[in-house]
Amino acid sequence: MKGKKGLLIVLSGPSGVGKGTVRKAIFSKEDTEYEYSISVTTRKPRQGEMDGVDYFFKSREEFERMIERGELLEYAEYVGNYYGTPVDYVRKTLDAGKDVFLEIEVQGAKQVREKFPEGLFIFLVPPSLRELKSRITGRGTETEEIIQNRMQAAKEELLLMNLYDYVVVNDKIESACNTINAIVKAEHCRRERVEKIYKEMLGVHE
Amino acid sequence: MKGKKGLLIVLSGPSGVGKGTVRKAIFSKEDTEYEYSISVTTRKPRQGEMDGVDYFFKSREEFERMIERGELLEYAEYVGNYYGTPVDYVRKTLDAGKDVFLEIEVQGAKQVREKFPEGLFIFLVPPSLRELKSRITGRGTETEEIIQNRMQAAKEELLLMNLYDYVVVNDKIESACNTINAIVKAEHCRRERVEKIYKEMLGVHE
Repeated sequence: MKGKKGLLIVLSGPSGVGKGTVRKAIFSKEDTEYEYSISVTTRKPRQGEMDGVDYFFKSREEFERMIERGELLEYAEYVGNYYGTPVDYVRKTLDAGKDVFLEIEVQGAKQVREKFPEGLFIFLVPPSLRELKSRITGRGTETEEIIQNRMQAAKEELLLMNLYDYVVVNDKIESACNTINAIVKAEHCRRERVEKIYKEMLGVHE
Repeated sequence: MKGKKGLLIVLSGPSGVGKGTVRKAIFSKEDTEYEYSISVTTRKPRQGEMDGVDYFFKSREEFERMIERGELLEYAEYVGNYYGTPVDYVRKTLDAGKDVFLEIEVQGAKQVREKFPEGLFIFLVPPSLRELKSRITGRGTETEEIIQNRMQAAKEELLLMNLYDYVVVNDKIESACNTINAIVKAEHCRRERVEKIYKEMLGVHE
């Protein structure tokens, strides 16, 4: 269908959940049609990493100039280094009707939600969250304090989730990839999106 | 995840769009996990059709008694015969955590939406709707009246669509099936649903 804008897909989740692994698995497939938005960072390239492929490597000064100029859709500082998403690439790709895929930290996702509320926000959770209750209460031998702490941690995770449209359990990488692809496919069929395209074609105004 | 209620999946669309064919294709697959809700009808069985498999065949009197007793989730009269969905089966299956699949006419879907607003409503459209504009204006040789009539028909189809969550183009049966399965998969991951399950597990009340 013509006149269709691309979807902004945002994959995020608690650190250590395996966002990067899932993202790499998605983009290792030939039939993946999303465009991956390469991040900008001030951290040094690791062995084998290439500028413009893995990251755009910038100096701290260059990065801060990008912040000042509003050239970043989101950014965050993590272990002393900046990481960010260039907004220009995202806008151009979406306007060309292609889906853009971001894999970012939760603080960044929050910034993107404010600027692109219509984006597709996916929260990746560890498989352990599935057995939340048994994980929290353990084998019944845990102290009340431990149970309370775990309960608190789970509630904080739930609060984080609140910003997202979908929650995907990262139990097996392959299965998480399939679920994410299904979500994108489904989202393209959402009535509000499809209807909008039809209305534009028909010249119907509400 | 335990404590999860099944999804009510409603497939509908304009008559002649191929709802039945798509539904049969979905249920011909071994890995389909939805439960198909068998309709009740007053029409005579066709050759090869079995009671309790294709339909529950009832007399007009029996059907009208079901209506009176509120035993039908939805019903409609079509070419002199009643068709309806027994509500009891639907509720029990959903409560058992299984997804129920209904393939019904648009008037029936409207009734279901009122009783199960949380259901998953999928509207199947003919592939021609994709090239809506060119179909309406034709090759530029159509009279203004024909164009206006087509425009009107397309707008009515758009109005029907309004009740649904998703719109699927029935271009190829296989592709329509895959899209419907993706939608169901995605819907199970919607944050509101997942969050509710977690909150129940944690005993969190809003």
